[in-house]
Amino acid sequence: MAQFDPTHHPHRRFNPLTNEYILVSPQRSKRPWLGQVEPSQPTDLLQFDPKCYLCPGNFRAGGEKTEKYEHTYTFENDYAAILPPPVPAPPPVSHPLLTIQPVSGGCDVLIFHPRHDLTIPRLTLEDISRIIEEWIRIYRKRGAEEGIKHVQIFENKGSIMGCSNPHPHGQVWSMSSIPTLPSVEIASLIRYSQTEQPPSDAPKGPDDHPCLLCEYAFTEAKLGERVVVKNQHWVALVPWWATWPFEILLLPYHRHIPSIFHLTPEENLSFASIISKITIRYDNLFLCSFAYSMGIHQRPVPLASPEDTDEHDVCHLHLHFDPPLLRSASVKKFIAGIELMAEVQRDLTPEQAAERLRACSETHYLDKGSEHRGIH
Amino acid sequence: MAQFDPTHHPHRRFNPLTNEYILVSPQRSKRPWLGQVEPSQPTDLLQFDPKCYLCPGNFRAGGEKTEKYEHTYTFENDYAAILPPPVPAPPPVSHPLLTIQPVSGGCDVLIFHPRHDLTIPRLTLEDISRIIEEWIRIYRKRGAEEGIKHVQIFENKGSIMGCSNPHPHGQVWSMSSIPTLPSVEIASLIRYSQTEQPPSDAPKGPDDHPCLLCEYAFTEAKLGERVVVKNQHWVALVPWWATWPFEILLLPYHRHIPSIFHLTPEENLSFASIISKITIRYDNLFLCSFAYSMGIHQRPVPLASPEDTDEHDVCHLHLHFDPPLLRSASVKKFIAGIELMAEVQRDLTPEQAAERLRACSETHYLDKGSEHRGIH
Ligand SMILES: [Zn+2]
Ligand SMILES: [Zn+2]
Repeated sequence: MAQFDPTHHPHRRFNPLTNEYILVSPQRSKRPWLGQVEPSQPTDLLQFDPKCYLCPGNFRAGGEKTEKYEHTYTFENDYAAILPPPVPAPPPVSHPLLTIQPVSGGCDVLIFHPRHDLTIPRLTLEDISRIIEEWIRIYRKRGAEEGIKHVQIFENKGSIMGCSNPHPHGQVWSMSSIPTLPSVEIASLIRYSQTEQPPSDAPKGPDDHPCLLCEYAFTEAKLGERVVVKNQHWVALVPWWATWPFEILLLPYHRHIPSIFHLTPEENLSFASIISKITIRYDNLFLCSFAYSMGIHQRPVPLASPEDTDEHDVCHLHLHFDPPLLRSASVKKFIAGIELMAEVQRDLTPEQAAERLRACSETHYLDKGSEHRGIH
Repeated sequence: MAQFDPTHHPHRRFNPLTNEYILVSPQRSKRPWLGQVEPSQPTDLLQFDPKCYLCPGNFRAGGEKTEKYEHTYTFENDYAAILPPPVPAPPPVSHPLLTIQPVSGGCDVLIFHPRHDLTIPRLTLEDISRIIEEWIRIYRKRGAEEGIKHVQIFENKGSIMGCSNPHPHGQVWSMSSIPTLPSVEIASLIRYSQTEQPPSDAPKGPDDHPCLLCEYAFTEAKLGERVVVKNQHWVALVPWWATWPFEILLLPYHRHIPSIFHLTPEENLSFASIISKITIRYDNLFLCSFAYSMGIHQRPVPLASPEDTDEHDVCHLHLHFDPPLLRSASVKKFIAGIELMAEVQRDLTPEQAAERLRACSETHYLDKGSEHRGIH
């Protein structure tokens, strides 16, 4: 029998954050594809769109005015999914299988830049740093509000991710409960920190306990085959257990960092730089504005005071980039059938995906020949 | 403060099968929607398409011929995601966080009917019964193969679910491991059966232990507000914890049934009938061929011999219908942003969805005025 070849033989990989297996079928990359082609993203956006409710000075559907902002701009979503307290509590359940829980909090919209046509990969490092500063400000402000336990910062980029407005913006949902996925991840981080682990040179978590993500980031940074780009503090990699074809996990690998609030000024700068490099590579992969969902996972709130510690200090700051595109600007991966009923399945291996992303330029394809070439 | 109103106040519901919470934001149904509109499904399909590799007598991309079948037709996928044994085993892992597992098995394609243009809701009960018989045959055949532990029967309907050919067909993936989602559900069923539960008139599982799904189906059938349709043996309902706007859980509620192999002839007939009624209501909801992913969850294989029992007898046969459409034939729900990073969020409540599906006719909109009216 042939020797095992991960680019040829089907296998399963385990995701220790979610405790899920992923089915990898690399031999399938050759099958013909007859399915749906996505409408491509508009590439000729205006710099200012008088009909866009996120452009400076325009009115939103609810009648509110978006101010004439110069850099970032944050406002409470006019159609929030979560409302501020007090919210009436549901009555006691009529059956133990019909469990219901109250929820409160708030939904913020964060506009990244006044320019309607400039997504993150087109922004300067200074502009990206301003977005990071705004993330930190909202995380602290919402995290200090009564009853808030989790602040979910995320970005939906591109209409094929359901994003309803091309003006570059992200969202922040603050909730009175830790949502399903972060809470599964936190349980995994706590379990790992309390279980004996093999000796390692990786950084450690609180009280010198092992940290799953310190260990994983350190290992991947050393191995290199799934790394897309790294700098002094951060590593961006296609995780061993990636669901999406070109999924990226971005995290600090040189020390245990629970949240964006804990970043030093240098870590902050190199954070902006690596976000720029990842998103430019994404756009260059299929020469399009590359759609993704991005989310920041970090410690729940409220933050412990500097001298205090609590069990949530085991959280290790990381960003998930989940992009749907599979093989061109218009062919995406579907999460359907086998994924919804059994387990996630992928064709391209994470190592192949990382290699393709490494091969992409760090100069944006729309900036070719400009003064920006090669200086990111 | 106002009294709690589930059609107005945000809340979270718990899914006891997956241990996940779902965020329900019914007040959001009013927000304007500016996003992507899906290309609609073709409605003028040929009865026989000479270019379709699933039509009787045509050749497939790999050069194999699809026989001139008269009812259903099953063949092994020419581009299978899982291959038969022997498959070379991966080498020992280089790090405990890089877990890899061998996998083997097979992928079958099951064509439902020779007619290129007839989806399940357009088929007669006799035709649907033939599909069920074929499901049972494949489940038993694959389930008896060396090393197979799980047989996943599913259907991807519609190009917005990634289905690459409109000719009505389903798939069966047989695997040497129990995949992630069924294995999480089985763990929940085992846990429930071993924990003391409140007294109940619902049917019981093996050894008179409580069964989560016997209890849940019985309770919902009695309450009625999330029921779409029920008959003597089966209930179709929008689950308390539904992810998709018009998600349906279909299951037997009058006795504990581990798999489709355990159905009596009467249960089989009423199974065909309720599948017909659900899928016709789906098509009638937005007057289109309604896309969904459907999957059958049942006990792992091999089947215990009739006199034997094993821990997998706690499995209770059920079908998930996960349809993406949200508010018309061309506006779908996205699983992105908050869903990928935090937890599933929905606007329409499950009770509202069930009410809308109950209001749909059981005569297919394309059959109006025909002899079939009202006799399903
Ligand atoms: Zn995470
Ligand atoms: Zn299930």
